[in-house]
Amino acid sequence: MSTFDPMPHLSAVQNSTDFLSTSTIIALTVFFSLLCACIIIGHLLEENRWANESITALLVGLCAGAVVLLVSKGTSSQILVFSEDLFFLYLLPPIIFNAGFQVKKKQFFKNFTIILMFGIFGTVISFCLISLGAILLFKRIGVTSLSTQDYLAVGAILSATDSVCTLQVLSQDETPFLYSVVFGEGVVNDATSIVLFNSVQSIDFSNIDATISLKLLGTFLYLFFTSTILGIVAGLLSAFIIKTLYFGRHSTDREVALMMIMAYLSYMLAELLSLSGILTIFFCGIVMSHYTWHNVTESSRVTTKHAFATISFIAEIFIFLYVGMDALDIDKWKASSASAGTSVAVSSTMFALVLVGRAAFVYPLANFTNCIRKRDSTKIEFRQQFIMWWAGLMRGAVTIALSYNQFSNSEDLSTHDSALMITSTIIVVLFSTVVFGSITKPLIEAVLLRHAKPNISDATDIPSLEDLRILFIENGEPSDLAENQPPPAVPKRSSLRLLMTHPTWTVHYLWRKFDDRFMRPVFGGRGFVPFVPGSPTGAADEPSARH
Amino acid sequence: MSTFDPMPHLSAVQNSTDFLSTSTIIALTVFFSLLCACIIIGHLLEENRWANESITALLVGLCAGAVVLLVSKGTSSQILVFSEDLFFLYLLPPIIFNAGFQVKKKQFFKNFTIILMFGIFGTVISFCLISLGAILLFKRIGVTSLSTQDYLAVGAILSATDSVCTLQVLSQDETPFLYSVVFGEGVVNDATSIVLFNSVQSIDFSNIDATISLKLLGTFLYLFFTSTILGIVAGLLSAFIIKTLYFGRHSTDREVALMMIMAYLSYMLAELLSLSGILTIFFCGIVMSHYTWHNVTESSRVTTKHAFATISFIAEIFIFLYVGMDALDIDKWKASSASAGTSVAVSSTMFALVLVGRAAFVYPLANFTNCIRKRDSTKIEFRQQFIMWWAGLMRGAVTIALSYNQFSNSEDLSTHDSALMITSTIIVVLFSTVVFGSITKPLIEAVLLRHAKPNISDATDIPSLEDLRILFIENGEPSDLAENQPPPAVPKRSSLRLLMTHPTWTVHYLWRKFDDRFMRPVFGGRGFVPFVPGSPTGAADEPSARH
Repeated sequence: MSTFDPMPHLSAVQNSTDFLSTSTIIALTVFFSLLCACIIIGHLLEENRWANESITALLVGLCAGAVVLLVSKGTSSQILVFSEDLFFLYLLPPIIFNAGFQVKKKQFFKNFTIILMFGIFGTVISFCLISLGAILLFKRIGVTSLSTQDYLAVGAILSATDSVCTLQVLSQDETPFLYSVVFGEGVVNDATSIVLFNSVQSIDFSNIDATISLKLLGTFLYLFFTSTILGIVAGLLSAFIIKTLYFGRHSTDREVALMMIMAYLSYMLAELLSLSGILTIFFCGIVMSHYTWHNVTESSRVTTKHAFATISFIAEIFIFLYVGMDALDIDKWKASSASAGTSVAVSSTMFALVLVGRAAFVYPLANFTNCIRKRDSTKIEFRQQFIMWWAGLMRGAVTIALSYNQFSNSEDLSTHDSALMITSTIIVVLFSTVVFGSITKPLIEAVLLRHAKPNISDATDIPSLEDLRILFIENGEPSDLAENQPPPAVPKRSSLRLLMTHPTWTVHYLWRKFDDRFMRPVFGGRGFVPFVPGSPTGAADEPSARH
Repeated sequence: MSTFDPMPHLSAVQNSTDFLSTSTIIALTVFFSLLCACIIIGHLLEENRWANESITALLVGLCAGAVVLLVSKGTSSQILVFSEDLFFLYLLPPIIFNAGFQVKKKQFFKNFTIILMFGIFGTVISFCLISLGAILLFKRIGVTSLSTQDYLAVGAILSATDSVCTLQVLSQDETPFLYSVVFGEGVVNDATSIVLFNSVQSIDFSNIDATISLKLLGTFLYLFFTSTILGIVAGLLSAFIIKTLYFGRHSTDREVALMMIMAYLSYMLAELLSLSGILTIFFCGIVMSHYTWHNVTESSRVTTKHAFATISFIAEIFIFLYVGMDALDIDKWKASSASAGTSVAVSSTMFALVLVGRAAFVYPLANFTNCIRKRDSTKIEFRQQFIMWWAGLMRGAVTIALSYNQFSNSEDLSTHDSALMITSTIIVVLFSTVVFGSITKPLIEAVLLRHAKPNISDATDIPSLEDLRILFIENGEPSDLAENQPPPAVPKRSSLRLLMTHPTWTVHYLWRKFDDRFMRPVFGGRGFVPFVPGSPTGAADEPSARH
């Protein structure tokens, strides 16, 4: 595990008259100048549909790494050393929180079953295939010193898709269905692959029995549910505190600070309890945008919406810049001491395994979903399946972090092969980010958007509450339509029948009723706090518009 | 120099299956929970005029330190170790930047001469007196092993006032004159005392000659002007980039990110060039609020205004919590091995020196100003002088950071006395923050605000541009009063006469003309970018309202 050390030579200059060590300041200055450059270049390239901020940052990082390598005459390309701590503690949480905060909740929950299926079973299928492929193929290339555990770790590492890059190439407005499925899968997938990875590291391979997969399943379910619940509780707590104490009437700064700190606290708490912080902070973001966001002042709403997006934006660029600069780390390339041929062979094998591993679950699971869905209008078309496969092929910082964790400190003798694994992983990450990152947007335009008919799965949105109520009435429910009264409780028989015919609608309707009757009076939310007129951007400004 | 190490036992758990070390996570979780608690308690105590957020955070930190001390059975009270790097690199810059961003520019520049006088000469007087007092008194108490350099360092350390706490106890709206003078002094004072401190550490005391004070003055002037110019250039650059590239029409996130990063970059650059980062980022904030802020979208304005304030708010609480928790560090108290009597004696002496050192420049300099100012209405009353003396007595994190820097790594044999200096400094900081922090607000009410006549110096505000123009006409200038034309150039003779009679007004008027004719067309600013209607809060929402 390499550590991020923003103060690398601190002890050496302790007795100098400077307060801060020069190398830290140089590193930070260069890094922030590059961040600045990335933002400006990213803006100038905005009209270019092949480029995006991730690729820009990655390439700027690579160039900067090359310059540093030249300046230092081949001894070092690194200004900041890649560190899992920096990544998992400070960069990933704001990105995932913002994704939860800005996600279109209705789309997300509508596709919840597909997302779970892809994120859990899909990742497991991919893991099995990639591990098996690595075991079968790596030995033929000449990588001989890896243990079974290493092969399984490779499977887990390469199964971790990159949710950050997905956010950049898929548009929530243009392709809401794909966005919610692929990004949601990415969030669940993070949890799954980290569970798999931890399991692989801790399982005693001399003592495998049949209950092991059951144990893994149990661990995963425990992790998934407790993490989600923790996130929801943290979100509700923040809503309750802000609603009860009426922070809004006093200080915007306090509200915003409290939202930020409580979100971060939920992540930390999850990590402390060895849960999945990513899942926790994602659901915390969703709950905060549904309740807490409506309890604060108008300025706090504008501020949180943009401040969270900005912080996430900076963290994303930071990560790609970081990965780019880290890629040229000369020590790793020297340590691997593999010929260019072997490097290319290993990387291509890994990449092929990633392609096959993803194809092996996207198409079967999508078609399985189509079998269950009876109406044609909700089926997933083949070209959508293709994009689902394609957009999830990018590998990112999670992959690199896991790879470092597995291979950079293994104390066995196979250091050449370990270093080779790390460099190959970096090649796969760079290649997939640059290639898929630049091609995905044009591809989506070509495959989906040019076929003028509205995107099928997107068109079948959940109807409004009024439509639902009318539907319930059509189903034979004598109902009081008076606007001011809450809708009547739906008798059991009808609920069940509806649940069978329109499961998503019914769940949504029941949730809305439960939300309006029990949740919002306690935790606030839209319509349950005094409306402040003069919103600068109106309803469209909400993190997630709700009909 | 003690280092902030958020990952203290990282190397010990490198091969465990956890990604993050548990101790880091525990530390961060506890710390962020305490931050949360401080915000909520601070809100509940808002009506209480004796308490404020700093004191709450300090006391919460002390309690948490005590609890940790009990839990660890007296071995450690620290969750995070106090570090100059964390403080100077990450916590101080946002606070000072926000202060510059939100400062009332007109008040600030109106009092610029007083601020500079207090910040430069005042600090030097205070430094000389405290050093002299320490040399004379400490030996009598029994502190014998300190060198001349140490005594001078004590003078520099105790001359550093706490601008952060000043922000909390003085209100920019109620007492704008006092706020701008005392806070402005604090910003300049930081630069002065850091220059003094660096000089004390680097001067060779065996070789003192008469040119040394001239050298010091030269260093200070160089530092002051280059730092200020760097800050102004960075601010103008951000305004120019955002105006030219028209970020606003594209992305609020990008604008906000660019403003944040460029401000931070100016601080880093100043530190890299061994300038005063505090002065640089302060002036960068002023320029950004004057130009850049007007070039961005409406949402960016609301976001930056509140996001900067929130980050600064969190950093302030963080610092006081940190200082509070650090105070009970058992190792330092053990190392000092001084009797309670000696500790109290040293602390009281230090405190008395601080009181005398400040009195020795506030009253003389204020009366000197009164002599120069001819009109009675602009003179500084005695009770204002008293508050100016009182409100600048607080010592804060800068003092602690400097004290660690001087005494925690001195490798001579006097470690007892060095540790005693650190603990005594901490006692002075705690005592002054709690006592002055809680008494200042009620005192200002009692001394100034109850005397119903409007605060004299505050009432003599700079007149509006219209008033100025009329004044110029009254002085015999034939002027075209047509509203749409720019005011005519003022002939030299009249300018000079006005400059003699109303110096501040004239400078303001000439600046306004220069600003409107040359600066704003290039860098944007109010009135030079299309007005977006529907501002949520109107002109009052500006960081600094400009008449």
